[in-house]
Amino acid sequence: MDFTLLKKTIDSRLESILQTELIKHQSNKIISNNIQDFLRLSKGGKRIRAILVIIGSQLKGKKKVDDNIIDLAVAVELMQTAILIHDDIIDQADKRRGEVTINHKYSMLGVPKAICVGDYGFFLTYQIINQLNIEDKIKNNLNIIMTRMMYNTVLGEILDVELPHQPNPTQADLNSIYINKTAWYTAIGPLLLGASFINIPKELETEIINFGTNLGIAFQIKDDLISISNQTDKSSNSDILEGKITEMYLYTKNNKKEDIIGYGDPSISDQVISNIKNQFKNNGAIKYANDQVDYYSKEALEILQVMNINDNIKEDLIKLVNVLLTRKK
Amino acid sequence: MDFTLLKKTIDSRLESILQTELIKHQSNKIISNNIQDFLRLSKGGKRIRAILVIIGSQLKGKKKVDDNIIDLAVAVELMQTAILIHDDIIDQADKRRGEVTINHKYSMLGVPKAICVGDYGFFLTYQIINQLNIEDKIKNNLNIIMTRMMYNTVLGEILDVELPHQPNPTQADLNSIYINKTAWYTAIGPLLLGASFINIPKELETEIINFGTNLGIAFQIKDDLISISNQTDKSSNSDILEGKITEMYLYTKNNKKEDIIGYGDPSISDQVISNIKNQFKNNGAIKYANDQVDYYSKEALEILQVMNINDNIKEDLIKLVNVLLTRKK
Repeated sequence: MDFTLLKKTIDSRLESILQTELIKHQSNKIISNNIQDFLRLSKGGKRIRAILVIIGSQLKGKKKVDDNIIDLAVAVELMQTAILIHDDIIDQADKRRGEVTINHKYSMLGVPKAICVGDYGFFLTYQIINQLNIEDKIKNNLNIIMTRMMYNTVLGEILDVELPHQPNPTQADLNSIYINKTAWYTAIGPLLLGASFINIPKELETEIINFGTNLGIAFQIKDDLISISNQTDKSSNSDILEGKITEMYLYTKNNKKEDIIGYGDPSISDQVISNIKNQFKNNGAIKYANDQVDYYSKEALEILQVMNINDNIKEDLIKLVNVLLTRKK
Repeated sequence: MDFTLLKKTIDSRLESILQTELIKHQSNKIISNNIQDFLRLSKGGKRIRAILVIIGSQLKGKKKVDDNIIDLAVAVELMQTAILIHDDIIDQADKRRGEVTINHKYSMLGVPKAICVGDYGFFLTYQIINQLNIEDKIKNNLNIIMTRMMYNTVLGEILDVELPHQPNPTQADLNSIYINKTAWYTAIGPLLLGASFINIPKELETEIINFGTNLGIAFQIKDDLISISNQTDKSSNSDILEGKITEMYLYTKNNKKEDIIGYGDPSISDQVISNIKNQFKNNGAIKYANDQVDYYSKEALEILQVMNINDNIKEDLIKLVNVLLTRKK
């Protein structure tokens, strides 16, 4: 499977769907400007979820990637834009995918607009699913999986928001975020959505959930590692400033019983930030997190090996896992 | 149809669905506390939309109000809670249905939590629809209508947010809010959702849309009139302080060519607020708005008269229109 080509196909169909939205609302400047913002923030994604949707549809062997599958893959990416727009209000982020966020762009109206545009993305996604030219049974299945995926994601987001303010966050709490938010949202949901187009046995569904859980956990820890080690990007400090609960944080607090001076205080100096990063390096927290990425990746790959799926698609999935887990950004 | 009894049935099923949610997540204090907030804000609604769902299912004559219809009616009410939670962030409201809003209750985490809990409500609603024990075809139809209703609602909300900041808002802009937000959301969507359980001809669907459009417009203008004339409730000034575009505002600006000193300035004194209310009384704006309520109610009732529906349910709808449009709060 040519991921680069696939990404281009997704990007161009995404643009075309949103251009149609713009044309539909061209007589209303207010609405079309908001859709324009949604389009702007939809660009530049890695399209991992869209690619996993397509992989899901090919698990039992080559199947024509028709318009319905592409549209479903785009729908998943638009859902991603919507949730990121809400996420950026929560994190008070000013940049996303190289673009200024809606909450930051429009002073007083920033938060209200970002809430509405995010909500718009949710319902646009369902609309795209509703408009697919497929059997009612498959369509219902897509609605069920999409809803389950988003229900879990939102619960994970709630934990993510509140955990830094709890007295003693545990590894179990953190795993619950990984599974609800990252694993379901990034891996399991997209694969199961794609697999709805073919008939897969219950057993394979369970394997997908296990595979996706391990991949999702590895992916999230990797994400936190990239975030903290990135030297060029200003946002690399945001986890520290916001007090995000990560493997590094829990390892330092719970395993090493060390305090982390300044963690979660948005007013700390660059020196204090640098101290925290050094602490994580010197006390073995970063090594520990990297080991966790390795552990969960290996688990994911082992489950993949025994999965009864097409050999070529298995190779594609292995390739994707490796791309995701060796990435630098 | 006994509206009071129906409301009790809805209220009790709503409570039971959310109690099940609470039990499902009882092991996680963070999540169950958030669901508790959602339950708290779900109570105390008028349940107009739920009643319209049930009326929709009876348009062609008495039909058993089974569990599926009740659950759908509850789903519509939970969607309403969700959208109100987001609405209250947008308006920075501190009270809703006599309860403190989520955005106001939790200082720093108020907005993040309110965004997440609102999103939770959206996906919970779809989950309830997905779990109904009905044919795939009907279920798809419910998903289509629910999504169309919410898509329109969000576009209406975007207009509502931005219109006060536009140089020259027009009656056409205002009508667009009325139709997208109020009419689709309060009347058309619920009626069509209920009607999905029976087979209605295309012609009746068009009549429902026309009826709902007129009812929705009348309902919204009535709402604005109640909001501004309510003497006891502090929130009665919020439209003036926020600069909400209403019939009274447009009549004064566009028909009477008068300035409205202090409108939309949240820092104005009680005296200035009182001056604005008197201005609307003296220049005929309030009378004009009342006339508009009468006009659109009559239109709605006229469409209703010629609708080919069961006579008893027609009586119920007339009764409901009269309740809605003569209410004092």
